[in-house]
Amino acid sequence: MAKRVINFNAGPATLPLEVLQTIQNELLDYHDEGMSIMEMSHRSKTFDDLVSATEDVIRKIMDLPSDYHVLFMQGGATGQFAAVPLNLSVEGKVGEYVNTGAWSVKAIKETAKLNKPYRVIASSEENGFKSIPADIPVSSEAAYLHITSNNTIYGTQWARYPESGETPLIADMSSDFYCRRFDGSKFGLIYAGAQKNAGPSGVTIVIIRDDLLSRCSDTIPTVLNYKILAEKHSMYNTPNTFGIYVVNLVMNWILKNGGIDGIEKMNREKAALLYETLDASDFYRPHADKDSRSLMNVTWRLADAGLEKTFVEEALAVGLVGVKGHRSVGGIRASIYNAMTFDGVKALVEFMKNFEEKHG
Amino acid sequence: MAKRVINFNAGPATLPLEVLQTIQNELLDYHDEGMSIMEMSHRSKTFDDLVSATEDVIRKIMDLPSDYHVLFMQGGATGQFAAVPLNLSVEGKVGEYVNTGAWSVKAIKETAKLNKPYRVIASSEENGFKSIPADIPVSSEAAYLHITSNNTIYGTQWARYPESGETPLIADMSSDFYCRRFDGSKFGLIYAGAQKNAGPSGVTIVIIRDDLLSRCSDTIPTVLNYKILAEKHSMYNTPNTFGIYVVNLVMNWILKNGGIDGIEKMNREKAALLYETLDASDFYRPHADKDSRSLMNVTWRLADAGLEKTFVEEALAVGLVGVKGHRSVGGIRASIYNAMTFDGVKALVEFMKNFEEKHG
Repeated sequence: MAKRVINFNAGPATLPLEVLQTIQNELLDYHDEGMSIMEMSHRSKTFDDLVSATEDVIRKIMDLPSDYHVLFMQGGATGQFAAVPLNLSVEGKVGEYVNTGAWSVKAIKETAKLNKPYRVIASSEENGFKSIPADIPVSSEAAYLHITSNNTIYGTQWARYPESGETPLIADMSSDFYCRRFDGSKFGLIYAGAQKNAGPSGVTIVIIRDDLLSRCSDTIPTVLNYKILAEKHSMYNTPNTFGIYVVNLVMNWILKNGGIDGIEKMNREKAALLYETLDASDFYRPHADKDSRSLMNVTWRLADAGLEKTFVEEALAVGLVGVKGHRSVGGIRASIYNAMTFDGVKALVEFMKNFEEKHG
Repeated sequence: MAKRVINFNAGPATLPLEVLQTIQNELLDYHDEGMSIMEMSHRSKTFDDLVSATEDVIRKIMDLPSDYHVLFMQGGATGQFAAVPLNLSVEGKVGEYVNTGAWSVKAIKETAKLNKPYRVIASSEENGFKSIPADIPVSSEAAYLHITSNNTIYGTQWARYPESGETPLIADMSSDFYCRRFDGSKFGLIYAGAQKNAGPSGVTIVIIRDDLLSRCSDTIPTVLNYKILAEKHSMYNTPNTFGIYVVNLVMNWILKNGGIDGIEKMNREKAALLYETLDASDFYRPHADKDSRSLMNVTWRLADAGLEKTFVEEALAVGLVGVKGHRSVGGIRASIYNAMTFDGVKALVEFMKNFEEKHG
């Protein structure tokens, strides 16, 4: 039996053990084809069927309407920061952005770099990104409204998505992709680097409403062009075949675990346990405002910041890995994505109580 | 023991069995860290060391001079078709291309699409891409000279690389990366989608001479920007971590098998056996001219084209997979990349002789 730690990494992040076991079992011989999935042509029927099945399970989990394409791209969210303005800008209109932290800032800066018109219409920068802005004054001049649905670094998440009217709502869901039920039909575009909640790094899931494909210009790099990827079933060129395979396994693992409602229930239970522990003591100081707390990334400081290094070290010593906070917030961060078990969070909470007893 | 076929796929392609076994053994617990390589932070020391080690082994195999960066990108050769003109165009100069087949054409078309100046200075289109052009009249106005070092579809390969003087020579080596010794210092830029000779799909190896980094504009998509990737050790954003890991294993497998000279010797022996078989009979009609024959992709027709479908079917029946030619040439193609064993080629040759006896 392999040794396994409890992995709170922010991403790439823990994967369901049974998914890893399936990969391991099939690694030399995928479905009796006599070769690894990595050695299989992306033009084979087997792989084409796998791409279709992966699209289908992504649609099914969230009851996506039929007028959406599901694409598999490369380049992560950083690639999408460019793809969004390159594909979806509209002459005479402006890309409108909500700034809820470091990833929003990167999306905005990439748009500026590419010399596409943009405007920041709401921001929580002034309060240290502890919350999601309440008022989102999307304008009639907006080409789209871009939000970051969950903010890994600050531990905040949109509790309710904004109403954008006729303006296509675009969300970077890299860090909370399919962690809870939402109405997909409210979105023009959803994108997610897979490496937090959906698979390994190197594959990007893109869900796009079909009418937006007509906006895509022919003069942008092919690898970033939604229209070409949609026409070519994500296989204009060779995709990350292994990555798509793992996404397929992870999405089917969601189905087997009660679908999106089952996963959401577990995510809410895990987060509740951790936030209750944080709120029960002055020893720990949660970072995010209560109404903006993330189900995925829980961030906090210790009242005595000098103890934070010890916290991380002692956690590591008992097999709790990856709890050091991002340098821009400091302190502690526990990423509790879909694949983190309730028992994993229980072990962390036990450790926190012991740590407080010892050092408090 | 897993069932394994003999896999002549053009890419994604066969991988060394011992590499797959290592991946399988380490899948749940990479190097006693208690997690899969897929679950590990790209910001961890372990992964950063793995990226450095992978760069180093790529340098070592080919004795690359120290003034080159080795980068790991996403998007395959198709991404590079855009990255080259976006990064390396020079005001008042022209990107010069040699057209040796479908992949060259794609590189050229992407440059046209992005509205960057280009010119095709040599082509073998007129003779059905059966050969590599002898005369390459690179001009003093060239920003760079772009070639496709091996042509998977037509089965041709440059026997000697062209002299480009002061003009940076750029090669798409996706289908013959590190299959033979060459002088890396003659190149300004080498790129290769990994999925044929270096690993799985979804990771692109880029080798760039440092002086060219100063050409890179700040106004192009970050995921395609060589300068940013070089400054950030290929980790401005999350790379394809699993893909880089497999590339590392494959490159170390080359070292263990006699380094580049050992691999080249084996590749020449495999190709010689197959071409000798083709030349020994009128039943088979090799496609490429002798002086342009590829060590990696061997393409041929049957004198009786009506038998080609039967050839593919009967090959499949004895476990020889992926020998159907590309639709643009038709006939038969055997891709015999580094990881194809001599015994694999021997099995194919035995089959070919039996097939000729039966149907000839």
